[in-house]
Amino acid sequence: MKPSTYIAVGTLIGGIVTASVVSLGLVREQPLDPNPRWRRNVGHRAVKYADKATMLKAVDEIRQILGQDAVSVNEHDIDEHGYSEWSTSNTDVRPAAIVRPKSTKQVSDVARICSRYRVPIVPYGAGSSVEGHFSSPFSGVCLDLSDMNNIVAFHPDDMDIVVQAGVNWTIMNEEIESSGLFLPLDSSPTTLVGGMIATNCSGTNAMRYGTMKDYVINVTVVLADGSIIKTRHRPRKMSAGYNLTGLFVGSEGTLGIITEATLKLAIIPDSFSVATATFPTIKQAAKAAFKMIRHGVPLAALELIDNVQMEVINSSGGTGGRTWEELPTLFLKYIRSLVLQQRTPIINGFRFSGSETNVKDSLKLAQDIAKSNDCHAFESANTDEERQSLRSARKQALWANLAVRPEGTQIWSTDIGAPLSRMAELIEISKDNASKLGLYSSVLGHVGDRKFHQMVMYEPDDPRQRKAVSDCVDSMLMRALEMEGTVSGEHGIGLGKKASLYKELGPETIGVIKALKETLDPQ
Amino acid sequence: MKPSTYIAVGTLIGGIVTASVVSLGLVREQPLDPNPRWRRNVGHRAVKYADKATMLKAVDEIRQILGQDAVSVNEHDIDEHGYSEWSTSNTDVRPAAIVRPKSTKQVSDVARICSRYRVPIVPYGAGSSVEGHFSSPFSGVCLDLSDMNNIVAFHPDDMDIVVQAGVNWTIMNEEIESSGLFLPLDSSPTTLVGGMIATNCSGTNAMRYGTMKDYVINVTVVLADGSIIKTRHRPRKMSAGYNLTGLFVGSEGTLGIITEATLKLAIIPDSFSVATATFPTIKQAAKAAFKMIRHGVPLAALELIDNVQMEVINSSGGTGGRTWEELPTLFLKYIRSLVLQQRTPIINGFRFSGSETNVKDSLKLAQDIAKSNDCHAFESANTDEERQSLRSARKQALWANLAVRPEGTQIWSTDIGAPLSRMAELIEISKDNASKLGLYSSVLGHVGDRKFHQMVMYEPDDPRQRKAVSDCVDSMLMRALEMEGTVSGEHGIGLGKKASLYKELGPETIGVIKALKETLDPQ
Repeated sequence: MKPSTYIAVGTLIGGIVTASVVSLGLVREQPLDPNPRWRRNVGHRAVKYADKATMLKAVDEIRQILGQDAVSVNEHDIDEHGYSEWSTSNTDVRPAAIVRPKSTKQVSDVARICSRYRVPIVPYGAGSSVEGHFSSPFSGVCLDLSDMNNIVAFHPDDMDIVVQAGVNWTIMNEEIESSGLFLPLDSSPTTLVGGMIATNCSGTNAMRYGTMKDYVINVTVVLADGSIIKTRHRPRKMSAGYNLTGLFVGSEGTLGIITEATLKLAIIPDSFSVATATFPTIKQAAKAAFKMIRHGVPLAALELIDNVQMEVINSSGGTGGRTWEELPTLFLKYIRSLVLQQRTPIINGFRFSGSETNVKDSLKLAQDIAKSNDCHAFESANTDEERQSLRSARKQALWANLAVRPEGTQIWSTDIGAPLSRMAELIEISKDNASKLGLYSSVLGHVGDRKFHQMVMYEPDDPRQRKAVSDCVDSMLMRALEMEGTVSGEHGIGLGKKASLYKELGPETIGVIKALKETLDPQ
Repeated sequence: MKPSTYIAVGTLIGGIVTASVVSLGLVREQPLDPNPRWRRNVGHRAVKYADKATMLKAVDEIRQILGQDAVSVNEHDIDEHGYSEWSTSNTDVRPAAIVRPKSTKQVSDVARICSRYRVPIVPYGAGSSVEGHFSSPFSGVCLDLSDMNNIVAFHPDDMDIVVQAGVNWTIMNEEIESSGLFLPLDSSPTTLVGGMIATNCSGTNAMRYGTMKDYVINVTVVLADGSIIKTRHRPRKMSAGYNLTGLFVGSEGTLGIITEATLKLAIIPDSFSVATATFPTIKQAAKAAFKMIRHGVPLAALELIDNVQMEVINSSGGTGGRTWEELPTLFLKYIRSLVLQQRTPIINGFRFSGSETNVKDSLKLAQDIAKSNDCHAFESANTDEERQSLRSARKQALWANLAVRPEGTQIWSTDIGAPLSRMAELIEISKDNASKLGLYSSVLGHVGDRKFHQMVMYEPDDPRQRKAVSDCVDSMLMRALEMEGTVSGEHGIGLGKKASLYKELGPETIGVIKALKETLDPQ
């Protein structure tokens, strides 16, 4: 489509802009080579969004349909939905209103109205993004989906569950626990299913269980103009039509608003066992991790924590009072055994004990590998309390850091991924470079899933510090790309990583992304 | 985009039609509700393809660039690429020429030329489709990718491999075997990587290892106009941009021509163990299978074979002379243990023995479940020969049927999938209904992966028989949909299942599929 055609059509059909329309749209300063013809489909938009008065008119219409309680213009509420202290990509602009729909139909109504008035929509889940996914740089309506928190249908015999987008995964897992089934991802406890899908979330169990995309059977999506689609029925496996489910998973709310989903469930293991291994240097720890993966040690999780982070865990006293060695540490998590569903009518009381032998073999192999990489100490958790303590030490990392930071400072949290064989080198260089900043910095790796995070504490009001951290992060991202890695292992692109996404994928591939976006959301 | 606009642009930009442009394009007889505005993007095309003379002119140009040897107009060659006796969706039209490119660049050249002359392109791999994926209903160029059979790069330390689309997966696995790594899918031995990706292939190991989509890290794709994109770098996990890789996987060659891919590899297990369980009725067998899955018995494969198929296996004498009980049978495949790479320099000679205990526990559980469902006999393979024999019995099903069928008959092979709890019922009804035809028919289920096949032998020249089989298959597909299942578990849509795809997804979702298609391939 030629740009002129596009705009004419655009004016006709109304539209919507989610957080990341904007995100991808702004890549437009990079000129596209005009030659490949299919790329003419990609118009360079000159969309004008509604002015404030028109936005409020749209909000009034929404209020009439959804009711008073569904719409908030409370300043505090608006601030909370437009800014977060853990995001590196805040803007000064705020949404005009927060809308809390209760159903797919209500989301469709909102989209239809916003489309007519050219009001951007930003879907909002738990608000845990660190890359500005829920920023509202052009104001508009922030669609908070947390009131859509119903389990629509639970099918234990099909091992799946149908939920609304606002369901919290930990609450869901508690509610279905007696069936012996669970969603095994283990992302942050606050996250909601819609956001988990929109960002293709990971979690500490990704090594064993995969990521969100592996658990989404179908999604119900409200498109830009308010039309509703369901990507497929409930078969686990199919080859009927394009993988639309997979297209919406990880699209960060930019292709439509996910309102409902059917999720696969896994069988709850009886219990996890945890071990730790400490190393003199982070490179040795990372190398040992690489070898454990390459040798196929059957772990559920393999996490790398640096000395700085171990200090934080100790000083925040958050793991049952236990004091850890302040050395680079690998956390290893095993599945000890599977348990049968107690409620299953067929074989009552039968308990599948799994295999202690298997766990011992795995542990021995992991230990041998650790020792051959100068492991300082290799310890297994013996009691449930110790296991829980080890697990929570890892899970609390971000919050522990937020707790100890000096007033006025912020945390710049970023993540990258790389092919397995380059991980140790990438982690070592990244840690060295961050250390040179002279600021508090820490590395935390989901090495089992080939990605890791870096956190740097800085004073946002100090432009010199801000630039130094930004440069350090940028060079880390570029190093990941040189190693055929990625600028985002799991945090996503949001507003924060637009420029580096362009570098990662190049103009041709970005062109396809833009073309898909403009097809489903022309405005 | 309005239709009129679309056509004008279409004329401007040239284009290409692959097998399934056509496939999806033909759904257009179903009128779309005009209201949802984004759907105006979907033009109802009135594309005119090149006439025969123009096609041959394009073929001449291709010959000049790719060389004489790359282009064939041999009648036998053309027939082999335009018709197959195992497909239910052959057309009378044949491609104008077969083109065998050697590189992504050459594929791009072909696409560019075909786009300019409006010549349809049909990508061709191993030609094993049963649903007409490689039919050429509008003639054009059949692009046979089997000469692109190079391993581009093997990264054992990253556990991935970069291959051209024409690489055969069994040959590839043999070449990399000494690394201790393999692509674990176990689809038909003839299949090529490009086709495996384009159809998101499965295989008997899908229960344990997943399907092709789980092994594709990136794809290099030639788009309709000849532009080349690579969907991402080589990190295993990422969240940078839309999941374009996932969009091309399973798109059946309709969104672009896959020329190269990076594939994840898994660690080769030491050995598989196999067991069989026979049952009085197919429903009891299917119910036992359901319970094994629901109880989390850790199997690599769980296959259901009906009595008819067991007779065929016996009469074709293809499994080392062993005679099987001719009863509905479950084949169970276990991983006995993992083996370490012998070549790994770190821990030479270390052998991770896995767990015999675990295997015994699993086997005991499977056996208990089988017995509680009136299992007739439960047998484990004891020797490698027996294991191989059991495995080949299952693998040879289609070929065994082709071998025993009377001259002049054809096999209508179809597949469906359903939620786990409905599988037993669906299999039973499907088998009953097929039996009523009075024709040879058989049911074969990848029950571990929640899908199954049905084969019916019929005389294609007998219109009454053909219609009876077609009606039987149609009612089977519709039953799967009533149970929230799918009309295609793994064979794909091709030409054969267009109408049922429309019924499965509905006009809204088909509209999105069409919009995506027309964005990337306007002609």
